Amino acid sequence: MENKKINILMFSGEYDKAMAALILANSAKEMDVEVTMFFAFWGLCLLREPEKVTMDNKTMYEKMFSAMTPKGAEQLPLSKMNFSGIGKEMMLDMINDNEAPRLIDFLNGARKKGVRFCGCKLSMDIMGFKEEELIPELEVIDAKTYLSDALESDMQLFI
Amino acid sequence: MENKKINILMFSGEYDKAMAALILANSAKEMDVEVTMFFAFWGLCLLREPEKVTMDNKTMYEKMFSAMTPKGAEQLPLSKMNFSGIGKEMMLDMINDNEAPRLIDFLNGARKKGVRFCGCKLSMDIMGFKEEELIPELEVIDAKTYLSDALESDMQLFI
Amino acid sequence: MENKKINILMFSGEYDKAMAALILANSAKEMDVEVTMFFAFWGLCLLREPEKVTMDNKTMYEKMFSAMTPKGAEQLPLSKMNFSGIGKEMMLDMINDNEAPRLIDFLNGARKKGVRFCGCKLSMDIMGFKEEELIPELEVIDAKTYLSDALESDMQLFI
Repeated sequence: MENKKINILMFSGEYDKAMAALILANSAKEMDVEVTMFFAFWGLCLLREPEKVTMDNKTMYEKMFSAMTPKGAEQLPLSKMNFSGIGKEMMLDMINDNEAPRLIDFLNGARKKGVRFCGCKLSMDIMGFKEEELIPELEVIDAKTYLSDALESDMQLFI
Repeated sequence: MENKKINILMFSGEYDKAMAALILANSAKEMDVEVTMFFAFWGLCLLREPEKVTMDNKTMYEKMFSAMTPKGAEQLPLSKMNFSGIGKEMMLDMINDNEAPRLIDFLNGARKKGVRFCGCKLSMDIMGFKEEELIPELEVIDAKTYLSDALESDMQLFI
Repeated sequence: MENKKINILMFSGEYDKAMAALILANSAKEMDVEVTMFFAFWGLCLLREPEKVTMDNKTMYEKMFSAMTPKGAEQLPLSKMNFSGIGKEMMLDMINDNEAPRLIDFLNGARKKGVRFCGCKLSMDIMGFKEEELIPELEVIDAKTYLSDALESDMQLFI
């Protein structure tokens, strides 16, 4: 399906929802469909690189917030039945039993396949996430740039 | 509105969200709009037939998972104010007071009206749900088949 | 981007999700894009005017429900890390530090800019919210009217 385009607004910061979004992004690219993902609010946690998290130039609240939120894809909780991580471990074992890839594999697959990664400037300002803490290919854009891309797409999802 | 088409990705497994999705599906069919619903992850719980749930050919994790998740439409919790079921009972009484149908009625309405029901193969594999435990008209498809249908639709929702 | 149209179904009643929806609505109007917002279930809490909440002509359940749900935009909880309000206070302080507007400002902005506000009749009946308790410009419509508007739009989101 060439000349088709998908836009996904990734608002949630949960393992299972991020998995759904990234499975769609990978599958679409394999079908030659263009994909833009726009990460806002909790969705940005998915793109943090754990080894690059910094406390420099952050207010007290930003430091607390930075410490309390998931640092990267594999730290995201489940949206249901998380039970302080037990439910997630169980789900990961079930994924392993089925030889299905983990979230980080889908994320890296999407990066390799050329999904366009955009981050919401306002969310980054409010949450105190710095550009250098997130994956390097991220383009920081505003809501209007998101809307222009989404309005030109053949489908849009808010996840 | 003939020749129009809607695609709903049902990811959530909550009573109120499933209600919203099925009210839209029923209303659309009444307007001669085509409807495809694609059930993934927790959304599949909605389509379990309580009397068909089986523990055969399941791993230990799949058995635990099967026991801990809702078995069919009427067992789904509310997304908010569930309070171990008290909030849901209250909501159901309020629905009754207004002579509004319950979730199971909307589900059966959608089945009768010819909504296309599709289930996500990967989710079923990971969660260990077997085809024979779910409603019989379910077509098991992969993410690419979902995307093809969604890209040809006039609107797409992720619920 | 003239002659373009966006439709947002606001189902959730959470501060951060309402913020995302209203930032998009405001930005779209600034780009001369038409915007309809359809409020259903918990989303209706956003449009309650705290000083107009009434217990008249409500059943016992409707009174309880009315008392237990947020009364207007600023009372909505966060979808994550709410911690009985501490997380929300922290987030609000972070918004203030960045001189970003609060939810109520985005709501009033959307009202001033001419976003079309619609409320779901069935949800209002079930939840016992009266028209006079909500913002005055709200049009009460049914699911079919929502679908007609959404199907004529260039993008649709379920939030």
